[in-house]
Amino acid sequence: MAAQQNPADEFTIGIDLGGTNLRIAAVDAQGRILERITLDTEVKEGRERVVADMCAAIAEIESRLPQANMLGIGIGVPGIINLANGRVRQSPNLPGWSEFPVRDDIERRLRTHVILENDANAAAVGEKWVGAGRNVSGLCMMTVGTGIGGGLILNGRIWHGMDGMAGELGHMTIDPNGALCGCGNLGCIEAYASAGAITHMAMAAIRVGRSPELARAAEDLGELTAEIVYIKAKQGDVVAREIFEMVGRSLGVGLANMINVFNLPLYVIGGGVARGWDAFAPSLMAEVRKRSLVARSTPTRIVPSALGAEAGLLGAAYLPRMYEEGEHGKNRRL
Amino acid sequence: MAAQQNPADEFTIGIDLGGTNLRIAAVDAQGRILERITLDTEVKEGRERVVADMCAAIAEIESRLPQANMLGIGIGVPGIINLANGRVRQSPNLPGWSEFPVRDDIERRLRTHVILENDANAAAVGEKWVGAGRNVSGLCMMTVGTGIGGGLILNGRIWHGMDGMAGELGHMTIDPNGALCGCGNLGCIEAYASAGAITHMAMAAIRVGRSPELARAAEDLGELTAEIVYIKAKQGDVVAREIFEMVGRSLGVGLANMINVFNLPLYVIGGGVARGWDAFAPSLMAEVRKRSLVARSTPTRIVPSALGAEAGLLGAAYLPRMYEEGEHGKNRRL
Repeated sequence: MAAQQNPADEFTIGIDLGGTNLRIAAVDAQGRILERITLDTEVKEGRERVVADMCAAIAEIESRLPQANMLGIGIGVPGIINLANGRVRQSPNLPGWSEFPVRDDIERRLRTHVILENDANAAAVGEKWVGAGRNVSGLCMMTVGTGIGGGLILNGRIWHGMDGMAGELGHMTIDPNGALCGCGNLGCIEAYASAGAITHMAMAAIRVGRSPELARAAEDLGELTAEIVYIKAKQGDVVAREIFEMVGRSLGVGLANMINVFNLPLYVIGGGVARGWDAFAPSLMAEVRKRSLVARSTPTRIVPSALGAEAGLLGAAYLPRMYEEGEHGKNRRL
Repeated sequence: MAAQQNPADEFTIGIDLGGTNLRIAAVDAQGRILERITLDTEVKEGRERVVADMCAAIAEIESRLPQANMLGIGIGVPGIINLANGRVRQSPNLPGWSEFPVRDDIERRLRTHVILENDANAAAVGEKWVGAGRNVSGLCMMTVGTGIGGGLILNGRIWHGMDGMAGELGHMTIDPNGALCGCGNLGCIEAYASAGAITHMAMAAIRVGRSPELARAAEDLGELTAEIVYIKAKQGDVVAREIFEMVGRSLGVGLANMINVFNLPLYVIGGGVARGWDAFAPSLMAEVRKRSLVARSTPTRIVPSALGAEAGLLGAAYLPRMYEEGEHGKNRRL
């Protein structure tokens, strides 16, 4: 029997490759972040530059942990991943990355094991590993940010579907003749509950003169963000409150559908918009109770992300521990 | 090594326990029906009577196959099953069956292995075993009849969810302010695409004088069924065609959502309404293409049930082969 290694002597690298920020962390077996580096994602400089930045940061982090053994690298990418060949199939936020062999390129440069995963799936893994879902065998995660993504953990495994495209929860139709979504469809949840939808609804209200309060805030601050709308909702602005009620109702319709379909014990709302939980949760919960017979008859829990902005980073760091060495197509139960 | 038994010497019993018909069949290892008995389900006479009828029919079938060995009994039930204790938890079509220990009662009477399953799950198993899904590892089945049920086969296994309530596809909200469903929610698919919804829409059209053709048919035949509306649609009646287009669009919205969520290779439409496939499929397919980016980028197939009314019966017959002897809580991959 081999001598038991001290887990603190081992770490993995998690990378959250966002369209704006590139976050790299060394994470131990308990999900503790040992070292971290946050950079701007220089998307405009091209993918070579971003990969070079990533590799330099990994080298820097490794040099800070000279006694420890790096087990592998997991990368959460905002797009659809080809799991078989480790390429990005589609990513609106990473133009020019399509069909680029990210995994092989980084493996070649760093001579280590690299696993790519969709960012929402990575967030779901993070929550399952050391977050809201550590005591359940399955969960459904909705990451509500600029857009809306989804990650499914079923029986302790990521559910990828046949082409790695499963979990597109943001493009669930919740109103067949509703608002136009960026994907071209009418009435996707993303068109009602994302940060983008929140600012869009707020700007529409300002344009028709319905919310002098939001107009003033937008003018004072020189911009209008979902966070500003949230602050105004908390201060009691009626229009801002209505917007967050719409967010809650829309997420509630989508979650009620997911609960009726999956009957999972846990549904987690993550992403930046989850920070507005108190503003949208009451209408979300009311909608779920109204629309889901499964939620009404089972101990279903709906909670905000426990890891917040770290969910995707920690989940990415767990990927090398989850997959068997060298086997990209198979995953172990979490 | 034991001598290989001739599969024709072995059979299982499948039972489709409907609110109207009670169908019992002996089925061999290849899914061929060897013997069958169809009875009325004497729901009003009480569950004792129905169980007695079931046991008598099984005995009769066994007596017709004196040389063969009966391996076990699978029963598809229109309701929510408690898999752990083999009881019906909830069944609108079987009043008085709630918490009745169906499994143990039949096991005691017949001294054999009995497995209960939800009827839509049984239909999905049937299609996976010897129907439309025999070459895929997973499928999503919608059974569209009086109501709408759903069955999910993921990685070759029935997806039950934590309480056996998964797959309630009929109660997916597809229009948040839409038609009232029997479950109390607004805008469930069941309120737009079930046989009940079809006759409801047709009667509404008759009441306001929109369809003299349907009114005449209803008067001539003394009733109005989804099948009559289908025949009128095929004959070119505009209102009947509109109704089937609504059925297709509604199923299409729901399926687009399921495709975006699961990214499975196959979606099967079963139940009586699937016989109207040619009347609703064009609008269903158009809706799916419009609403599902996953369907547009992957080889997703949507097909009518290959087994028709036999799907649930054959699936029920497969249950004893699917589960390990005596282990009700675990299922083998199909």
